[in-house]
Amino acid sequence: MIRTAVVGGSGYTGGELLRILSVHPKVEVTMVTSREYAGKPISLIHPNLKGFFSINFTNFSLDKIGEKADVVFLGLPHGVSLNYVPKLLEIGLQVVDLSADFRLKDPSIYKYWYGIEHPYPDLLNKAVYGLPELHGDDLRGAKLIASPGCNATATILALAPAVKWGFTSNLKFVSDVKVSSSEGGAKPSEGSHHPERQNAIRPYEAEGHRHAAEAEQELSLIGKKDVKISIIPHAISSVRGAMASAHMWLDSQLEDMEIWKKLAEFYRGKKFVRIVRGGIHPYPDPKYVIGSNFADVGFAQEKRLMRLTMFSAIDNLMKGAAGQAVQSFNISRGFEEDEGLRLPPLRPA
Amino acid sequence: MIRTAVVGGSGYTGGELLRILSVHPKVEVTMVTSREYAGKPISLIHPNLKGFFSINFTNFSLDKIGEKADVVFLGLPHGVSLNYVPKLLEIGLQVVDLSADFRLKDPSIYKYWYGIEHPYPDLLNKAVYGLPELHGDDLRGAKLIASPGCNATATILALAPAVKWGFTSNLKFVSDVKVSSSEGGAKPSEGSHHPERQNAIRPYEAEGHRHAAEAEQELSLIGKKDVKISIIPHAISSVRGAMASAHMWLDSQLEDMEIWKKLAEFYRGKKFVRIVRGGIHPYPDPKYVIGSNFADVGFAQEKRLMRLTMFSAIDNLMKGAAGQAVQSFNISRGFEEDEGLRLPPLRPA
Amino acid sequence: MIRTAVVGGSGYTGGELLRILSVHPKVEVTMVTSREYAGKPISLIHPNLKGFFSINFTNFSLDKIGEKADVVFLGLPHGVSLNYVPKLLEIGLQVVDLSADFRLKDPSIYKYWYGIEHPYPDLLNKAVYGLPELHGDDLRGAKLIASPGCNATATILALAPAVKWGFTSNLKFVSDVKVSSSEGGAKPSEGSHHPERQNAIRPYEAEGHRHAAEAEQELSLIGKKDVKISIIPHAISSVRGAMASAHMWLDSQLEDMEIWKKLAEFYRGKKFVRIVRGGIHPYPDPKYVIGSNFADVGFAQEKRLMRLTMFSAIDNLMKGAAGQAVQSFNISRGFEEDEGLRLPPLRPA
Amino acid sequence: MIRTAVVGGSGYTGGELLRILSVHPKVEVTMVTSREYAGKPISLIHPNLKGFFSINFTNFSLDKIGEKADVVFLGLPHGVSLNYVPKLLEIGLQVVDLSADFRLKDPSIYKYWYGIEHPYPDLLNKAVYGLPELHGDDLRGAKLIASPGCNATATILALAPAVKWGFTSNLKFVSDVKVSSSEGGAKPSEGSHHPERQNAIRPYEAEGHRHAAEAEQELSLIGKKDVKISIIPHAISSVRGAMASAHMWLDSQLEDMEIWKKLAEFYRGKKFVRIVRGGIHPYPDPKYVIGSNFADVGFAQEKRLMRLTMFSAIDNLMKGAAGQAVQSFNISRGFEEDEGLRLPPLRPA
Repeated sequence: MIRTAVVGGSGYTGGELLRILSVHPKVEVTMVTSREYAGKPISLIHPNLKGFFSINFTNFSLDKIGEKADVVFLGLPHGVSLNYVPKLLEIGLQVVDLSADFRLKDPSIYKYWYGIEHPYPDLLNKAVYGLPELHGDDLRGAKLIASPGCNATATILALAPAVKWGFTSNLKFVSDVKVSSSEGGAKPSEGSHHPERQNAIRPYEAEGHRHAAEAEQELSLIGKKDVKISIIPHAISSVRGAMASAHMWLDSQLEDMEIWKKLAEFYRGKKFVRIVRGGIHPYPDPKYVIGSNFADVGFAQEKRLMRLTMFSAIDNLMKGAAGQAVQSFNISRGFEEDEGLRLPPLRPA
Repeated sequence: MIRTAVVGGSGYTGGELLRILSVHPKVEVTMVTSREYAGKPISLIHPNLKGFFSINFTNFSLDKIGEKADVVFLGLPHGVSLNYVPKLLEIGLQVVDLSADFRLKDPSIYKYWYGIEHPYPDLLNKAVYGLPELHGDDLRGAKLIASPGCNATATILALAPAVKWGFTSNLKFVSDVKVSSSEGGAKPSEGSHHPERQNAIRPYEAEGHRHAAEAEQELSLIGKKDVKISIIPHAISSVRGAMASAHMWLDSQLEDMEIWKKLAEFYRGKKFVRIVRGGIHPYPDPKYVIGSNFADVGFAQEKRLMRLTMFSAIDNLMKGAAGQAVQSFNISRGFEEDEGLRLPPLRPA
Repeated sequence: MIRTAVVGGSGYTGGELLRILSVHPKVEVTMVTSREYAGKPISLIHPNLKGFFSINFTNFSLDKIGEKADVVFLGLPHGVSLNYVPKLLEIGLQVVDLSADFRLKDPSIYKYWYGIEHPYPDLLNKAVYGLPELHGDDLRGAKLIASPGCNATATILALAPAVKWGFTSNLKFVSDVKVSSSEGGAKPSEGSHHPERQNAIRPYEAEGHRHAAEAEQELSLIGKKDVKISIIPHAISSVRGAMASAHMWLDSQLEDMEIWKKLAEFYRGKKFVRIVRGGIHPYPDPKYVIGSNFADVGFAQEKRLMRLTMFSAIDNLMKGAAGQAVQSFNISRGFEEDEGLRLPPLRPA
Repeated sequence: MIRTAVVGGSGYTGGELLRILSVHPKVEVTMVTSREYAGKPISLIHPNLKGFFSINFTNFSLDKIGEKADVVFLGLPHGVSLNYVPKLLEIGLQVVDLSADFRLKDPSIYKYWYGIEHPYPDLLNKAVYGLPELHGDDLRGAKLIASPGCNATATILALAPAVKWGFTSNLKFVSDVKVSSSEGGAKPSEGSHHPERQNAIRPYEAEGHRHAAEAEQELSLIGKKDVKISIIPHAISSVRGAMASAHMWLDSQLEDMEIWKKLAEFYRGKKFVRIVRGGIHPYPDPKYVIGSNFADVGFAQEKRLMRLTMFSAIDNLMKGAAGQAVQSFNISRGFEEDEGLRLPPLRPA
């Protein structure tokens, strides 16, 4: 049993990690930290998990975590993980960081998007970008996993095959993402107030969304060319689920069957990617992955204009956060990739 | 491995059974019937289950089901199960019926509520009412399980301790139930049309809801007195979840701690009932059981007026239908009660 | 043109008042106060009203309001209006107070529910409870109107005919209210965070809801007997709309036609109450009054048990707050009751 | 008073027309047809309008409509209006057609998108495309108004200034539209079933959406060049509201202020278009136009990549259907443009 700590356990990502780890047969959760709720039962904040954990939230302590844990999942805000990761690695723990702090390889790009010099540029290279469909090999034995952002995951999984196989010579893409409210985390704000958020169709960070940096990094790697991604998220009223509609103009029409084959080839053997095409539900829809770690990937071509849209639908808390983190962790340890993640999507939900 | 057939597999209850059975370690799904979709892949109708089943929907055939299955779950409309159950029992299969057809013991009460003479009154007594918290012992070895209705389950679990322990001498209760849209099944109608249902707060069957018959039967058994229940459901805009608020007038104030103790005593050792009281989320809310088989039970007393409300929150497709059916089946076979049902609730959802 | 000020104009009630007053032909809005947003355009906070008002929010000032306004609508929190009302009356302004501060006649009941001695007990008697269907005559010329609470309005309108006509001898009622998120006001909180509120079915203030005090006061007046009301609200996921289901046990069955007649008689000539019975939508549903000042009233009787439920459906921001305040104001001034309120409900919404 | 008939009055567009016309001071509704509900009261189908109309639905009859009406609004499905329009014009009535049947000028384009030869090509030229912001002058005195589609309206209003002022030399645009459920009309279907539609983020007609034809026609007219539009709608879970996010790549960065000025210039004096930019709600959101005829228009530029998105937010039943039809009608008659349409948007809703 891998002794596991969740740092920042009172947020939505922390709660989702606990939900997964509670059914993970190779893992024992030994510590869950929360500054605000130290000493309180986990179910106080996560009433869904009532009866699942006997331990309480505790304060973070490097000594204690060193004693009690083999691996640490960090569900902390961006900029906060920075301060924890080096110390945790130093005392020999494996770290799965769900923040953006170690996702980018190039410190100058980090600075561009996050506004500060990265204090640990060496660790950027050591970190493995935890998108198992792209970095499965690198993840084996990884000590520091930088788990991708939700909108980046959706965008990358939608575009990766198109970039890999050169569907178009124009490597500038708009990823129009539709985003559910749990993406914003557990902290209330004016914009997340129910009467304000419900029925909204609200663009945000529409003049530069940070997840573009990750997406460009990963897709450029795949395409071996400089790929540019403009991600433009729209807040809508679902609670879970993100949908990337990544639009591109083709140089010439493609056969739909050809596109399908390339998708299938790209994702062959990837347990958590399903190619969706045709039938009653011809395109991906986050509705059908809710509660699971699946990414459903598909496409629509308007042949008249040679516009191709690649779709990718995920549960933002699963494949977009906690589920993917556990998937990467499983690979890093040589476990079955879907250990703890055999949770079929709910329907209807 | 128990060879298992799901008859009526294209509806929501059928889909939920398949979701559970896909992770049930003691069960192999060998047959899923659907008149409408025979020959089609299961994921055509249940896109969430893409990749989970290799068999297709088939037409029902008594011969084939006899060959292929040990147990049959019937997800058929009321009045249709009637015709299948006797034949399935006759050829030696175990039957778990999710319809209302075999839930009532008294044929005259069946006639009152369903308008026809029950054609198999003898089977009514043979059937075990599949509410494991009440009939755990009877379920062991049961050949015919009549799985309860969702609103009845919520109402009974809310009221059972109050009736058992005689909280009040007045045995007439109003159960004001708030009901999500998946309760109505997978078939579209005017009332279930999204623009009509969304944001509705709509009473229905408000002048006599059939689930009252089951609730009265079971609660009278517990109370050893004639208990009367008026269930009045209100359709609201969630997709999953049902909440019973069962109101009563007390003869005298009760200590809250006393009520809590009685609840705890009544449900001691029951894996799927959680007593909710106090904290940030002081009362049950279906939101925190979504995707799971839990029933969260609690209460609120307005001491000034001696009004007591017992609450029970369930996922109508799980503890209100498919989950409970599998729970009863597990007990009937001597399996762990929660086999296939270790699915923690989602949050947020 | 009546010169009108809205004090506390940045909340939902304030915004709804502005929406109505913007189309009211006899009213000119001359001042809108907000401590937080003084100096800012009204559309900054109420983007729906962009283009409707040329004035900005200002700070409250007794001098200025005395110069600029003939009537003041107070959209302030409970306990805050207390400090404004006497001064505003003193300088000769008419006051329509939407808070709870002047709704109760009996200071001891005020103290019981609000925990403090009322500082202006004399004003309690001077204030007219602004439910025009009950106090139309008193409202003519009223200088201080205490506009009712939303859950109280729904409960009173549901029960008033039953109490008036003595449907039952048992004058203790449970009003199970289903409540939309805008009732909680514009200030974010943990419970109103979208991921938490959406899909909730959450009882609150379930052990004593303050609106019961108003409802008991008004219904006792009508019944000329001591009436007791237990209001138990449930937060659900709509944004607008409240539904009271007020349950009672009858002494003997009533003819449905008889109930209908009594309802019709009670509400004869009341422009904003519609009796709903039969047809495709046999019961009231807040969905069909959204955006309007209507209260739809109806009932359902389970004759088997002599349980009668009276329903009342309102838009909590209109008939439950701003709409009713303007309706009372219209009567007080001798205007048409529906001036500014000829806004048909939206459908679907 | 203009005597007005609504043909196809039981659908959502018909209902919305009735809601508007009920407060229109220059109009008297003399006839409302519905094959299915002839003889039934209007409020049977439109419970929101209970008390507003004393006439019942009737069957369509050319003779009667000729006697009773001066103008006819057609809320009929595409392909059905075709058969009514010529006859209604012939007997001298003014026709406002809300279907797609007379929107396109070029019969060959009609054939391409609708699959049949247009039977009345001469009427195509006679019809005025009822988008008042573009065709205000042509509408004066118009006898046949072809009212635009909702997704076309949103797309055209978003892109018109960009095309007019030549923001980019690349005249191929993707309009990624987010669409509420009322767009699909009042008829239930599998896809509109509440449990299926709620929480969906579902692309549809993603390989060629017919509204592109109108949008291309109108924008090519404005741009005096061949403009190509790929509209790709996504069904989401709101009931009302459509949002077009029209993406383009610029040749060079533009000053935001410059874009704003061009928008303001283009829409100067247009009562129902509001330019939204900056503040707490920096972009358009359909949430803030619900219930009204406004189109809120705005933009977001990612300067790093020279990606510009033009937004347009409408209530699909108002500016996207019934509201716009009445607006065009008002102009055709020389009334104030906003007669009957002074309905401020609801908030929150």
